[in-house]
Amino acid sequence: MAELHPYVSFTTVRPHRITDLRHGAVSGSDLGMHAPRLTPLAASLPDTVPFVGPETQERAMGQMFAARLGANESGFGPAPAAIAALQAVAGDVWMYGDPEAHDLKSAIAGHHGVSPAHVVVGEGIDALLGLTVRLMIAAGDVAVTSAGAYPTFNFHVAGFGGRLVRVPYRDNHEDPSALLAAARAERARLVYLANPDNPMGSWHPAATITAMVADLPQGALLILDEAYADLAPGDTVPELDADDPRVIRMRSFSKAHGLAGLRVGYALAAPPLARAFDKVRNHFGLGRAAQAAALAALGDHAHLARVQRAVARARARVGAIAAEHGLVALPSATNFVTIDCGRDAAFARHVLAELGQRGVFVRMPGVSPLDRCIRVSLGPDPALDIFAATFGPALRAAAV
Amino acid sequence: MAELHPYVSFTTVRPHRITDLRHGAVSGSDLGMHAPRLTPLAASLPDTVPFVGPETQERAMGQMFAARLGANESGFGPAPAAIAALQAVAGDVWMYGDPEAHDLKSAIAGHHGVSPAHVVVGEGIDALLGLTVRLMIAAGDVAVTSAGAYPTFNFHVAGFGGRLVRVPYRDNHEDPSALLAAARAERARLVYLANPDNPMGSWHPAATITAMVADLPQGALLILDEAYADLAPGDTVPELDADDPRVIRMRSFSKAHGLAGLRVGYALAAPPLARAFDKVRNHFGLGRAAQAAALAALGDHAHLARVQRAVARARARVGAIAAEHGLVALPSATNFVTIDCGRDAAFARHVLAELGQRGVFVRMPGVSPLDRCIRVSLGPDPALDIFAATFGPALRAAAV
Repeated sequence: MAELHPYVSFTTVRPHRITDLRHGAVSGSDLGMHAPRLTPLAASLPDTVPFVGPETQERAMGQMFAARLGANESGFGPAPAAIAALQAVAGDVWMYGDPEAHDLKSAIAGHHGVSPAHVVVGEGIDALLGLTVRLMIAAGDVAVTSAGAYPTFNFHVAGFGGRLVRVPYRDNHEDPSALLAAARAERARLVYLANPDNPMGSWHPAATITAMVADLPQGALLILDEAYADLAPGDTVPELDADDPRVIRMRSFSKAHGLAGLRVGYALAAPPLARAFDKVRNHFGLGRAAQAAALAALGDHAHLARVQRAVARARARVGAIAAEHGLVALPSATNFVTIDCGRDAAFARHVLAELGQRGVFVRMPGVSPLDRCIRVSLGPDPALDIFAATFGPALRAAAV
Repeated sequence: MAELHPYVSFTTVRPHRITDLRHGAVSGSDLGMHAPRLTPLAASLPDTVPFVGPETQERAMGQMFAARLGANESGFGPAPAAIAALQAVAGDVWMYGDPEAHDLKSAIAGHHGVSPAHVVVGEGIDALLGLTVRLMIAAGDVAVTSAGAYPTFNFHVAGFGGRLVRVPYRDNHEDPSALLAAARAERARLVYLANPDNPMGSWHPAATITAMVADLPQGALLILDEAYADLAPGDTVPELDADDPRVIRMRSFSKAHGLAGLRVGYALAAPPLARAFDKVRNHFGLGRAAQAAALAALGDHAHLARVQRAVARARARVGAIAAEHGLVALPSATNFVTIDCGRDAAFARHVLAELGQRGVFVRMPGVSPLDRCIRVSLGPDPALDIFAATFGPALRAAAV
């Protein structure tokens, strides 16, 4: 990987400019005898990656982070039922998982009151975003997102030769009106919106999303990323017609359910779109262990309720820590809190670096004006104790 | 999924014909208001899938298979060390896996005497094949394989708009000379060869592979699928220059290591090619649990040796069962034995169906002339006992 910023690891990829491809500016055969003979598109892609993992930073530092609060993982852990299911299935992992994930899809369908034909499962939302882009974006097609929103979506749009159009956030929120206007002006095939949002933690009420779907220009598909929906206020998740062909919703077991290390995500879409994923997905990609654990997690309502309460408490605590230092913690509907460090991006990056040197892994948005902030994932008190103890010194060191 | 053949589940996908795409025969906007607006390529892809899982057949039958001998899984189970590692990591799966898979890649590199820069890890060989095709095959580019070889490779070539050229097997072996001739004539970018082969279980000596690499036409990359290498005779795996840009080797934890349900594969390639995967791969796709279990499996040499001995015994036993019925079991360098049923494809399909009705899951090749055979995965004696008891009755029922 060419660009390694140990602390500012919340980088975005440059969108692939399709004009480079069309004019053949970069050709696989120009790269010399020992270079791989990539397609023109692949050869044109940058070497940057959406995220640098904390382990990379730990290896660079020569020590592990004391508080892992950067990747919006759930330090409150997986559901006990999921841990038990994973341990129970361990001896059975010589068998591939069911490529249709019948039991998991049925449970998800029941949970949402839809049919299994509305459900697509995959190796995390990341994989599902990639497949959605692959199905919808040919070279030069437009996808619209917000400047500073999820970098992995941008990575996939670039990766399939799409043209990414970004509109600014508005008051720390993604801006549905601006997204719609851009989609209309650019004849976009995809519009990406996370509700609740990452990295700002903000959210729109369900009615705003419903109105947005109604106003989508013809031919545009809304990717509604609801990775944090389980942690949002009750009026955040819209009731949408499950057969509406204009929207695909994405959900994750990596956040509230605490199964990030197993990679299970799913999408809810009208059956013709859901079925199209079978044309391109890695059919055996969701393994037996991941399916078993996700199924158990979905049924462990008590754990989810515990996590929801713990997240609410931790939000308040991080808010209080920010306030102690005269800073504003943005309201959050997620398992992280974004703190406005009150100055410019260079200062926020400096704070991030100083926290890192004190053993605290956090990330920050990669795009102005969001990059005046740092993003602190919520976790149990021992991790937040470390954050509380180091934030002041880090701020002071960064201010020097 | 449109085509479900409960027993003949070893289907191949039709290769995508790029002429259809260029002339716009199928367009997303022709599909009606409620159809997803797929790219022309995606819209043109067939609804067939590479494999139907045994679970789908079990649901159709209303009961589980008594002997699961169809997917070349390892009934000898995962390594005890891998089971223990999976159980130990269960509580930690709230954390994403290291996206660089540093520890696993280092161990793999050490195992093969290469550097970590030569190693790519992914969600099984299936995912790595897809990424390799994506990096190398633009619309209309040619990939060469053998007629009846691994369907998932064909699925990916079709999926990225490539043109698949297939050459026949020769005496139940993939035919390196024919593959090379086709690659030369068609200016292929990719050539796929599995050594040992699936579905026939045959193999070429290392020297044949080394000569094949030397004779590759310029610009062609050999995908050397060595999923079964751990189970092959000692002279099967060639010593290749790790920096040779003409070949990428694929290995799996799903076969000898018995971790099919965790989805871990890896590729060995010259560093410039290995690095290119970072442009397109699902960076967090290999989860923490999968990495931990694979790392432990790689170190459990005693289990691998046990599996190798058990596979050798089971090969002999399946050979003896075939011989009892006057049939020939083909020599195998894999964890399955392919039995020539001695008649035509219809008869072999009938045998497969009769075995299925008796609770035995096996598969068969999908392409003539290989499809006169059935393919029996090797497993422990209780599973082979069931096969032994049902094969005769199945043959007799099929002969009626």
